[in-house]
Parts: sequence; structure tokens; C-alpha cells
Amino acid sequence: MKKIVIIGGVAAGAKSASKIKRLLPDSKVSIYTDDTHVSYSSCGLPYYIQGNFDDYRTLLVRSVDEFEQMGIDVHLKLPVVKILPKQKEILVSNDTTADLVSYDKLIIATGARPVIPNIKGINDFENVYTLRNIEDGIKIRTQMERSQNVVIIGGGYIGIELLEAFVKNGKHTVMVENNRQIMHNLDDEMSDILRQRLESVENKNFEIYTGERVEEITGKNHLAQKLKTSIGREIDCDMIVVCAGVRPNIEIARDAGIEIGETGAIKVNKLMQTSVEDIFACGDCAQKTHMVSGKPVWIPLGSTANKEGRCAAMNAAGIYNEFEGVLGSMVTRCLNTTVAMTGLTQKTASEIGFNPITTIVKKDDKVAFMPNSGTITLKVIADKITGLLLGAQAVGSVGADKRINTVASALLGHLTVNEFGNNDLTYSPPYSPTIDPLLNAMQILCTKTARNC
Amino acid sequence: MKKIVIIGGVAAGAKSASKIKRLLPDSKVSIYTDDTHVSYSSCGLPYYIQGNFDDYRTLLVRSVDEFEQMGIDVHLKLPVVKILPKQKEILVSNDTTADLVSYDKLIIATGARPVIPNIKGINDFENVYTLRNIEDGIKIRTQMERSQNVVIIGGGYIGIELLEAFVKNGKHTVMVENNRQIMHNLDDEMSDILRQRLESVENKNFEIYTGERVEEITGKNHLAQKLKTSIGREIDCDMIVVCAGVRPNIEIARDAGIEIGETGAIKVNKLMQTSVEDIFACGDCAQKTHMVSGKPVWIPLGSTANKEGRCAAMNAAGIYNEFEGVLGSMVTRCLNTTVAMTGLTQKTASEIGFNPITTIVKKDDKVAFMPNSGTITLKVIADKITGLLLGAQAVGSVGADKRINTVASALLGHLTVNEFGNNDLTYSPPYSPTIDPLLNAMQILCTKTARNC
Repeated sequence: MKKIVIIGGVAAGAKSASKIKRLLPDSKVSIYTDDTHVSYSSCGLPYYIQGNFDDYRTLLVRSVDEFEQMGIDVHLKLPVVKILPKQKEILVSNDTTADLVSYDKLIIATGARPVIPNIKGINDFENVYTLRNIEDGIKIRTQMERSQNVVIIGGGYIGIELLEAFVKNGKHTVMVENNRQIMHNLDDEMSDILRQRLESVENKNFEIYTGERVEEITGKNHLAQKLKTSIGREIDCDMIVVCAGVRPNIEIARDAGIEIGETGAIKVNKLMQTSVEDIFACGDCAQKTHMVSGKPVWIPLGSTANKEGRCAAMNAAGIYNEFEGVLGSMVTRCLNTTVAMTGLTQKTASEIGFNPITTIVKKDDKVAFMPNSGTITLKVIADKITGLLLGAQAVGSVGADKRINTVASALLGHLTVNEFGNNDLTYSPPYSPTIDPLLNAMQILCTKTARNC
Repeated sequence: MKKIVIIGGVAAGAKSASKIKRLLPDSKVSIYTDDTHVSYSSCGLPYYIQGNFDDYRTLLVRSVDEFEQMGIDVHLKLPVVKILPKQKEILVSNDTTADLVSYDKLIIATGARPVIPNIKGINDFENVYTLRNIEDGIKIRTQMERSQNVVIIGGGYIGIELLEAFVKNGKHTVMVENNRQIMHNLDDEMSDILRQRLESVENKNFEIYTGERVEEITGKNHLAQKLKTSIGREIDCDMIVVCAGVRPNIEIARDAGIEIGETGAIKVNKLMQTSVEDIFACGDCAQKTHMVSGKPVWIPLGSTANKEGRCAAMNAAGIYNEFEGVLGSMVTRCLNTTVAMTGLTQKTASEIGFNPITTIVKKDDKVAFMPNSGTITLKVIADKITGLLLGAQAVGSVGADKRINTVASALLGHLTVNEFGNNDLTYSPPYSPTIDPLLNAMQILCTKTARNC
């Protein structure tokens, strides 16, 4: 009987476990994780905290019981502390047990963990949180309910999603981001537009401070009460959530001699194979290939984890399957503003050696006479010489994500801006203007290409 | 001074006029139309009738005054009755005037007109309408306000958009469609799903009868009061709107010796040139090329008209520009259900000679725990041998149109279902499930291809 061992069980791990069990019903499939739950939507945690639903179990995609019924063993709170590739075993160990478990195929899906910035006092208080797993979500929601003043350190995805959650719960919220702008993976003009939209919210009960660093957290009785920033600002708080990014959990892989890529994540090929035979990696711990640039990247997202988990399972089961890579597509929401992007930013396109041309258009998201029409600001990036579409970013109403997915397919098909300019996008007044903002942008970009198409 | 004459001024005509005036500021640009308005959103008429806004002038994109300020002459209610290509003149004539007008370049944008089915009594009553221009919209809205029982003959786009308008205004509405199902340009299962969604609306105040023909309209004092259908059903009414499709206005072109295509619309090449020198055609009167099948089609839509108007103007101005064609993309809405499609249906794919494989998936449009999540039924069509994506149809919540635009770009890029299966679509719980319905569908289709990718 083939023994498949999977380390980690949130997105990539859970997906690969169920996929491989379907492909090889006679195999023994085991998940080992230090987590208290498997197979849950960690992307849904901000919405649990916001109160869109009250039972955290709503986040579970599959329960442990369901895995057991499928014939998959799940070992919770049982960390894998060592991989021993030569003997094809892993060492699992917690406070009460230690065991060697043998495998025929090993899938590493250890995910990522929050970065803890170097701030004086950050580890000293009970009301300073990070958000990664279900326990974190429960703790943050509970503490939020008895807090009035919340501070978020970091203005990336999770930061702005939590800003929405806290503000919608009536909590006075302060966000401190040490980069020049929140969501700084966008090009500067676009993150500035996001900031402007957020700052113009009516009756706003939050402040965003950028370009300043939290230097110290102070408090008493194990409770943080105050932060001091690099410009001497003092901020009172009842709780702090640190959203300063994540890093991949690669230590046990590295210690086992598995190659780590230049991004710091585990290097894998298109079959999700690591450098060591019979060991696969997928999800947030694995490096990805950017399909536009061809370069290695590390963009940890749940949707990618799912696809990689599926691909790793197929190859581990002996069914050839390639995962080509990612486009860097993402979407998030903060207080009725949608932020989405795909492909390369102008910054990254320049760094890689493209000669990017760009345009920014601000347009109605549907025909302006329709109820609830909003606006979208769209930035599109293309290569000057070839006209090849390289990426797009959108900030605006809910229709922003639609435009970005439309560009994602175009990137996959290597379309030029000229080809895209004739795209037959659906039109009806409740859905878009006669000329979609995407087509406007492409037509403008056409005039900036070397061929002036 | 170059003389540009444009026949028709709604979408293609208005667009080509303003574009050419920008390109050739010194030219004399004139629009002749039998309409009472130019440059308006005819697709917005159902929403004017519904009452989304009260002033019909909201529909105007550009007023006659604005055209005049741009230096474009607009001649309303002045039909062109003859084109004289040899002398490069047109004959315009109404009750009070007749004139020969010379041109250097002529752009025909005469649009389309409603089909009047052969029904006894259809031309005999004042309260029987078709919906094409602003006058029609005003009349229908006025009559609706004093009616209780409305009948719609025909269940295409305009029919179902008016169904929404009348039902939302509290009018008891009956739709009669002689085909087996409403929206019969979709594949059968998809139009059936649309029908089921509409029939399950709570407290519904409408009936849809399909597979039966209206045979006779009767009434008195010039007012229709009753319809009789082919199965002997009698329906009382205070007004009737005939939505039985449209046909292209090609008569003056044909009479001038301009070639008509096999679809019955004016034949044009990629530059929007007709068979006669210096005469272009664009918009609803012109034939199009389907970019998936390569075949001539006639799919009259405002978004296409706009692009064709732009292309005709550029070439008439001497700037080379190609319009490649259409994908058959469309979207419409009826009572919270979105219907959208792009590319070929299974029916048309089979007729053309593809060996289509298909799948239908019904999925959540976003993660189910989010407020206002809905479902989408998606049909995807691909070629069995090559795996090439051929088309998609969606019926469901508002996110349906997003999926279809994502497929439109993929059709333009000639993606296979295998390539699309790895598409990096944006993901976040308020926007889509972890695995988007599109990716589900593509992964299923992969297993049905000849290569079993």
C-alpha cells in the first residue's frame, strides 16, 4: 500500500490529500499539522472577525471527521520536526509523543507565518495579535468586541481587510504602515488612489499613517496601551494586530537538504517536485513562476495553493500534470473599494527590462444613468516595442475585479493592446459603459506603442 | 474641404462623426437621419421605461448642440432616400424638402428596425408598440403608467428587459414566445435554466408562454384589448409590445448596388469598406465576422456599433485600421438574473463542424458564507480534438457577466481548456469561491478532450 504523507492541511495540504485519495483509493494518506484545524478558509478570517457570520466552523471546508470518512488520517497539533529523505521518513513530535513515520511520497504544504517586525515590546503583551489561523481569528474577534481603539501595524491585504472589519464594528482604528503608502505592491499612483478613496469615506472613524514606523509598544499588566512611532506620534490602543507580511515555512525542508529558491521559498518544478526525489511542495511554502516575466516569484495566495495542491497530488499519484505558474492576480476589498491587479506592475516591468508604456483611466463602471453606478480607476501596462500586455491594476467599485480577470485571460493568451482593443466584451447598461474602461485604456495604449497601432 | 456624409446617428453614426471630425478638423462632416434624436443609448431605453431615471434626455450621449459646436452638421427627420455612387451624391427628402448632397466619403450607419410578425390586427391599434428609438420609449412608458395588463410578444433581450421593467412597475405581464424557450439563442439547457429562475421569483406577477404563437389581436376604438394564441389561449391586455427581433436597414444600400452579405446585412471588409468605393458601413446595418468561427454573422449590438464606427471613421480619414470582428458576447438582466454568453453555442459549434465537448456547472458565485452570495450556472464549450475553447454561457447572479468577459479574452487568445484551467483568476471571499466556477468547468472539460489533458 502506497503511503502518502502530507505536512500541513489548510489549503494546498487539504486539497492534495483529498485529490490523491480519489486518485489512489488504496493508498494510505496522512496529514500531519501543528494547527488545531485543517481545511479552512484562512482568507475568510477577516469576514468572520467582521461578523459576516458567527460560527467559526463556517470557515471549515472539510471537517476532520469528513477526512476520516474519506480514509485520510489527520493528525492535529502534531508538528513534523524533521524530514529524513534517505530513510524516507519524517519525525513527528509534540509534548507527549515522538514518532518516525515512513512515506513513499511526501508533500510539503507547510504554508507561511506572519513576520514579526523588530519593535520594542512587540512580544510582551497579550493583546498584540497576528492573523493566520482560526485561533488567531477567534482571539481577535473576542478582543475586538471589548475594545474601542484598535491599531493595525501594516497596510497590506490583511491590514486593509481588518480595517474594514474593525471600522464596520464601530471601532476607532489606526493603521500604521512604514512604506510610503498602503498596498505598496501596487504602483504608486494606484495605491495613492486607494488611499484617497478610503480617506474620503463619510464619517470616517479611522486614520491611516504612512511612511512612519512603530518603534515601541508600552502598557501594563501584560496589556499594550500605547504605541510610539518614528516621528514621535503616540497612539492609544486597546489592542494591536500586526499585519506586516508573511514568510514561507521552509525550515524543515531546508534542513533536509531540499533546495530553497532565490525568493526564499522552496524551489519546485512544474510538477511541484522539489530537488529531492519523491518530495513535493505546494502552496504558500513553495516558490512560483510568474507567467508574464518567466521569473521566480513568491506570491502566497489561497487560490494558487489550491491549484498547486491538485497538481502535486496528481504527480505524486503518477499522473503527469503541469502547473505553469501565476500571474500575480489578486483582489481585496476595503470599505466598498475594490483593489485588484494582475500581471506585472510598471515597477516590476521596468526592473525586468521591459520598456513599459502605461495609461490610467478613470471611468464609470456602468452606464452612469443606472442606479449604484460607481467609478473605476484602471492602470494598464504594456511593452512599448511589442505592444504585449503586461499587467493591470484597478481601484474602484465592485466591478474592478471583473476587469482584472478579463486581463488575466489576455495575459495567458499573450494578447497585445491592439488585439485587446477589439475585444468583444459584454455590454448592457447595468454592467458596463458602451465602451468598457478596459477598451478605453487599450485604445490609448495603442497610440503609445512603437508601432502606434 | 473633404466632405464626409454619415447616414444615421445613433451609435455607429454618432461615433464615426465625432471621430472623423477629430481626425480631420478641416473636413465638413454631416449626419442625416430620419430619427428625431442622435447619439443616444438605445440599450438604456428599457431602464428609462423601468423608471431608473425620469428624463429621457439622460439617454443622450451628445446633444445636437454639442455636435454643432464640434462643427458637425446634424439633419434630423431628413431621410436619405437614395445613394448615387456614380455621382457621389445622396438624395435626401422629407415632406418639405428634397436635396442632392455630395460626398467624398460616405458612411452608412442606418441601423436596424423591429420585425413586425405576421399577426392579424397587429397594425390596427394605437397601443401596440415596438421599441427602437426615444419616441418609442416615451410612448411605452406613458402607456405603461396607465395600464394594468401588458403583453410582450417575443422573449429575446428586449423582451426580457421589458418584462423586468413592467413587473417592477407592478404591471401584470404576459410574455408570449413562439420558439420553444425564451432567449433561444442560448443552448436549450441554459435558456431552460433562465426560465426556471424567472418562474421561481417570489410573488411573481407575470406569466411566460412559450412554443405558442400570437395569431390575432382584437380590440375596439383603435385600442387592442385581447390576443389569441395558436393554442386558443385568450389574453386580455391594455397594451402590447412587439419584441420579435430586428432586421438590418439595408434597402438604400442594396438599391445603390452595394453588396449585401449572406446574413442579409451589408457586406464589409475589415476596414468597414463596402463593395463600392468610398462607401463604408458600420453598426447594426453591417455584417460582421465571428472571430471564433471565421464565418459571417449578423449580431447587432451597441458595443460593436461603437467599435465599427470608430474603425470606419479612421479608414475614411485615411488612417489604416482593422476591425477583426465579434465574439458574440452579450449580457442582459431580468429580475436579478444575469444572462451572458460569448463565442459559439454548442448548436452553432456543431453546425460549423467542430466536435464540441461541453460541461455545465452550478456553483456559488462567491464563498457561500459571504452576505448576498448567489449561484451561477455556467456552460463551457470546447473542441474535443484540439481542446480549444469555443464559447461559454452563464445564467445566475450578477457575477455571471464577469465570467463571460474572462472567457472572451481567452477566445481572443485562442486558449485551450487546459491552458485556461491554470488561469490565475483573482480570489477573495467577497468576489469568488477559492476555485472559480470557470476553473471547475475547465478542469472537467479537460478530462473530456481527446488528449484527456
